[in-house]
Amino acid sequence: MNDLICMAQLNPLAGNIEHNKNKAIECIKKAIKNNASLVIFPQMYLLGYPMGDILYRYPSVAKHAKKALDEIKSYCENINVLIGYPEIEEKSYYNSICFIQNKEIKRSIRKSVISKKSIYHEYSYFEAEKFNLKDRIFELNGKKYGIIICDDILFEKKFDTDLILQLISEIDILICCASNHTRMQKEQFEHNVLKDIAKKYKTKIIYVNQTGGSDDLVYTGLSRIYDEGGEISALIEPYKEDCKITDINEKKHIENSELDKTFENEFSLNYEPYLEYIHNTLVYAIKEYFSKTGFKRAVLGLSGGLDSSVCAVLLADALGKENVLGVSMPSKITSSNSKNDAQILAQNLGIHFIEAPIKETQDLIASKFSEMFDNINWCNRYTSSYTQDNIQARSRATILWGIANEYPETLPIATSDKSESYMGYATINGDMSGGYAPILDVTKTKLFALAKWMNKNRIEKNAIPNSVIEKPPGAELAINPKTGKTLTAEEALMPYEFLDEVIWRIENKNQMLDDMTKEVFLYEKNHELSSEQKLVWLEKFFKRMQGALYKWHIVPPAPVIDIHSINSIEYRQPITSKINYKENLL
Amino acid sequence: MNDLICMAQLNPLAGNIEHNKNKAIECIKKAIKNNASLVIFPQMYLLGYPMGDILYRYPSVAKHAKKALDEIKSYCENINVLIGYPEIEEKSYYNSICFIQNKEIKRSIRKSVISKKSIYHEYSYFEAEKFNLKDRIFELNGKKYGIIICDDILFEKKFDTDLILQLISEIDILICCASNHTRMQKEQFEHNVLKDIAKKYKTKIIYVNQTGGSDDLVYTGLSRIYDEGGEISALIEPYKEDCKITDINEKKHIENSELDKTFENEFSLNYEPYLEYIHNTLVYAIKEYFSKTGFKRAVLGLSGGLDSSVCAVLLADALGKENVLGVSMPSKITSSNSKNDAQILAQNLGIHFIEAPIKETQDLIASKFSEMFDNINWCNRYTSSYTQDNIQARSRATILWGIANEYPETLPIATSDKSESYMGYATINGDMSGGYAPILDVTKTKLFALAKWMNKNRIEKNAIPNSVIEKPPGAELAINPKTGKTLTAEEALMPYEFLDEVIWRIENKNQMLDDMTKEVFLYEKNHELSSEQKLVWLEKFFKRMQGALYKWHIVPPAPVIDIHSINSIEYRQPITSKINYKENLL
Repeated sequence: MNDLICMAQLNPLAGNIEHNKNKAIECIKKAIKNNASLVIFPQMYLLGYPMGDILYRYPSVAKHAKKALDEIKSYCENINVLIGYPEIEEKSYYNSICFIQNKEIKRSIRKSVISKKSIYHEYSYFEAEKFNLKDRIFELNGKKYGIIICDDILFEKKFDTDLILQLISEIDILICCASNHTRMQKEQFEHNVLKDIAKKYKTKIIYVNQTGGSDDLVYTGLSRIYDEGGEISALIEPYKEDCKITDINEKKHIENSELDKTFENEFSLNYEPYLEYIHNTLVYAIKEYFSKTGFKRAVLGLSGGLDSSVCAVLLADALGKENVLGVSMPSKITSSNSKNDAQILAQNLGIHFIEAPIKETQDLIASKFSEMFDNINWCNRYTSSYTQDNIQARSRATILWGIANEYPETLPIATSDKSESYMGYATINGDMSGGYAPILDVTKTKLFALAKWMNKNRIEKNAIPNSVIEKPPGAELAINPKTGKTLTAEEALMPYEFLDEVIWRIENKNQMLDDMTKEVFLYEKNHELSSEQKLVWLEKFFKRMQGALYKWHIVPPAPVIDIHSINSIEYRQPITSKINYKENLL
Repeated sequence: MNDLICMAQLNPLAGNIEHNKNKAIECIKKAIKNNASLVIFPQMYLLGYPMGDILYRYPSVAKHAKKALDEIKSYCENINVLIGYPEIEEKSYYNSICFIQNKEIKRSIRKSVISKKSIYHEYSYFEAEKFNLKDRIFELNGKKYGIIICDDILFEKKFDTDLILQLISEIDILICCASNHTRMQKEQFEHNVLKDIAKKYKTKIIYVNQTGGSDDLVYTGLSRIYDEGGEISALIEPYKEDCKITDINEKKHIENSELDKTFENEFSLNYEPYLEYIHNTLVYAIKEYFSKTGFKRAVLGLSGGLDSSVCAVLLADALGKENVLGVSMPSKITSSNSKNDAQILAQNLGIHFIEAPIKETQDLIASKFSEMFDNINWCNRYTSSYTQDNIQARSRATILWGIANEYPETLPIATSDKSESYMGYATINGDMSGGYAPILDVTKTKLFALAKWMNKNRIEKNAIPNSVIEKPPGAELAINPKTGKTLTAEEALMPYEFLDEVIWRIENKNQMLDDMTKEVFLYEKNHELSSEQKLVWLEKFFKRMQGALYKWHIVPPAPVIDIHSINSIEYRQPITSKINYKENLL
């Protein structure tokens, strides 16, 4: 026996025990061949995390997992294995790690602190097991190892409790089997906790995390070993599977700028430090969603605007330019600049491109509508409506879904961004519609920064035409009667710099309208802003947000990036609710 | 003091403390005027249940609730009040009942058993308080009352534990402040638990439940008092608000056929005993969704088929016939029978009706598509595709959303049913699209029964033409090459009798494909069915269901009726998952 351990940073397929089992066996074989003495898999690896309500609807997957363990153990000759699985005992489920030693299942270690986050559903299915010190410790090659399951104590800000201290005091090395998805600041927080524990208690820590993507959650992996000084001595690259074999006594010091990043808890437009991470995570998320759902190709509308341009670049990076089709669908009021920008972008990226004007369809539907409205004897029509605007957006989505119906393995893309989704500034069955929404959790000011970053840092420089980044965003669906030009989004809404700070304050500070009136916004530092105008914008924001709730209910899956999101996987404000956002002002 | 108590069966507006507080004060005033000595409100009444993640995003609503309690207590002269609210202490939240006695807040009783159901999100927010016997008992007019908060012990099948027995042994009357939504068998289960406790321990029980609807959940109310023999001595009607004042010594015996219903745990096509309940609950759900979101009018496509016909009747019953617009949108392959049926239905119901043919739009889009596909140089097209079918469905939805854009307070209706949604036999941006989906949780065989029931029991008899109920369902989007007629749904899928039992077995028995091969289906008793054909259907079902997951992600809000649903409020199987439904067969 030696101190070689194998960190199995794998990408499980949720619900497919057979697939996950086979991958585990391959990894164990590799570890045996390389003389490792221990293989560590992520939390709940055999079922695949996040598991949604698979256990609830199809409880027999837990039986299948038990059978799979019996097969796995037969491969574990002279090796130790820790592998996450759903344990069933009578009618109770546990989030467990199975400890296999030399072809024998020694015991199960059951998670004690069940996550309360609604995103994971752990609480609905798993019983919390009393923390049992003895079960969590095993000896190997003269060293004592202790086992922790994901945020089981560690990340609940309770790591200073007696139990964890007692565990640490009795062991040499702490193992954490994790399945932690990424989002802004989350990995950094986890890193700091682990680093601090290692340093404070002079303990090595082996942290094994899964990689891969689910519908909305991305797992970067970043499995690693901390030495007794809190330094990283081994690290698996993010976004990839690897069964890395390392000597736990390795003396390296590995720097990782991503994990060591510090965050300001104040709104800022300086997104630079996060743009590479955002780009890589979004690209990986797209890649994962497509491969796991069996899609290969993406089709999206190219308006010549920022949102669709950024989506096109991300898709090309994720799927390959040959698998992306950009469709320019000019209407009567689309400017020739926009058309040109769309085409230039497509050329720069090398993606497929066609033009499919919607003028005739728009005219026909509009004239049919006009006849139809004359026949409806119901109630007064709006004096001013979005009907004409939305005919355009919906005709476009019909084209994209039509292409998806005609070509195999093709998914249409929804290009809505986070700022406009908060405002409900998006058309149902129009730009909101698609099989996947890559930038739903990216605010507009961040998108501008990301576009510039991609122009500078991708292989093809300046793929996005400058004019796309410089012109004011707008849906180009309507004319502003005041200017005679197409209505810009900031005219319809409010300045993005202000809007994005409102979102930031909701998501990072849990503020309501009345709280925000008392805060000084970045926009106020940079521009003149009367308190009346500020209140007008805030009221507009909260009113529009309330009206947007029903749209959030039907947004497609989208990668979570920010500290909080309105993705339907985690956002749960009833549409029928009616919060008084300025109750304190009453 | 006397034994008059007031059961406040109210309909809170989630998140609107001000609104809920004012309603509570009105009720307390009425109780004082009528000499009642105790007013009992539902669980979490002040915030409104279900609360989603309101507390998480906007924690200051808990502060507002505290302020509201201070105002409420000032009205409580010579009266006792129990009222549910979100209690905050330091950074912990509790699901609490505030006990007010003669203008003074006496104490808070905190819930001990936090619901694990993901539909409620309780576990994400609330701490469970140790069950404290003393806090839960108060004396009034020489009688001892004990307090239970919703499923706090009672409904967790733990009501035989020491704690509840001890509580019951020390009191005369048990009070349960509830907010239990309805769904098949749920209210009956709760009734049986309460009745058994009352009888077994010779205790009166006062059960106060909220009424109203949320996005997907319906609260019928049915607040009631059980006497020591387990008989109901007072009952508030379902689906309505009432502050009912009753003497707890009332000697009535009230029968309620709904609560006393027993259920067979076997699949059956005999839906008769449940149809009135289903009708009333769906109608109430629609009414509530519309009024709480501010919509007044509904527009829906009338195809002359079963789904849209049933939806039209439900909408007319909920919103009034003058607020419903049915649109017949015949395409090239719509039969004249279907058109006629749509018109006759509208006439029978007295709803608004227009015809808006889509032939020209369909032709124009099809010819534009054909040009466009010639320009796409990408990959091979499907040899047979749904492109033409879906142009029709999407052109129709564009019309409905256009009408919603043009007329104030108008919501388009998605008419997809449960059987077809399970199969993904519904078009995105087509029949799946709408602001609300009344029958998403109603299977096809149940819809047939419901249609017949409505024809017999509504004021306007036989509103739905017989031909609608008799003809085989189908989307009328394509021609079956074998028959030369429009393709029926059962040709495209499988017999509904079989399909609905598969759904029933998943939702009621948690069975997978491999389990079902071993079961004898009702269809097999009624028809010849080879085991090969059965396996073909089962495989088709599970394959199509897997492919439908992404559609379930974007279904509109819809009332939950069945014991389980695929409504997005509770269904959480990752689209990226890949369960092997026949793993046991391997």
